[in-house]
Amino acid sequence: MASVRIREAKEGDCGDILRLIRELAEYEKLSDQVKITEEVLRADGFGENPFYHCLVAEILPEPGEPQGQGIGTKIIKKVAEVALDKGCSQFRLAVLNWNKKAMDLYKALGAQDLTEAEGWHSFRFEGEAMRELAGR
Amino acid sequence: MASVRIREAKEGDCGDILRLIRELAEYEKLSDQVKITEEVLRADGFGENPFYHCLVAEILPEPGEPQGQGIGTKIIKKVAEVALDKGCSQFRLAVLNWNKKAMDLYKALGAQDLTEAEGWHSFRFEGEAMRELAGR
Repeated sequence: MASVRIREAKEGDCGDILRLIRELAEYEKLSDQVKITEEVLRADGFGENPFYHCLVAEILPEPGEPQGQGIGTKIIKKVAEVALDKGCSQFRLAVLNWNKKAMDLYKALGAQDLTEAEGWHSFRFEGEAMRELAGR
Repeated sequence: MASVRIREAKEGDCGDILRLIRELAEYEKLSDQVKITEEVLRADGFGENPFYHCLVAEILPEPGEPQGQGIGTKIIKKVAEVALDKGCSQFRLAVLNWNKKAMDLYKALGAQDLTEAEGWHSFRFEGEAMRELAGR
C-alpha cells in the first residue's frame, strides 16, 4: 500500500490546502461557496491564536499500487489521537446526505449520525444577514 | 421591556453557565449528555488559548414587565458583531428539528437551514470510538 505520513500542516502548505478545499467543494457541488484565499488561510491558521488547526497526509505511492487507499481512516485516527491529547470528549464532522461513501466510512469507524438520530440541523448566518444583524 | 446587557463571560460566571447548559439540555431532552463540570468550563474558556468564547446576558427585569423578551435576538446580534469584528464570513448554530420556536427565530433573523437546503448531517465520534481509533 502507498506510504502515508500524517503531520501537522505548515504555513507553506496553504497553497495545497486551498487546492484541496476547492477540489472538495467541486465534488460537493458547492464551488460557489469557496471565497477563502491562500492569504486568509495563512493568517487564520498560523498567527498567534490560530482559528483552525490542520493535518495533512503526505503520500508516497508505491509503483503498481493504487493510490488513496485508507487515507481518510488514517486522518480520522490521527484526529482522534489529537482530540484525546487535548482532553476533548468528542469531535464532529459535517457531511452531505448524498455522500454515502463518506457516511459509510464514518459509521464504520464508530461515528453516530446526530442529524438522523437526534434531529440536529445546522443553521448558517452569512455576510448580508450578519451585517444587517450588526447594523452595519 | 426588561433591560438586557450582553457582555463577555468572566471566569466567575462558570457556575451560572453550567446551570444554563443543564437547563438547555433538559429542554432538549439530552440531559444524559451533559458531562462537563464547572472546573472544565473554567479551564477550557479562561486559559491562555481558550477553547471557547462566551457571551452572557444580564437581565434587569422592570416591574410589571414580562421577562425574557428578545434576549435570543440580542445575543445573536452581538454574535454577528463579534464575528464581523473577527473577520468571520459566517457563523452557525445547531438546533433540534422539533425546536420550532428556535428555528423560526433563526430564519426570521436571516439564517438558512443548511441541513434542509443542502443536506448537511452532523456526525459525532465519542469517547469509546475515539479511544478505539487512537488505539488506547
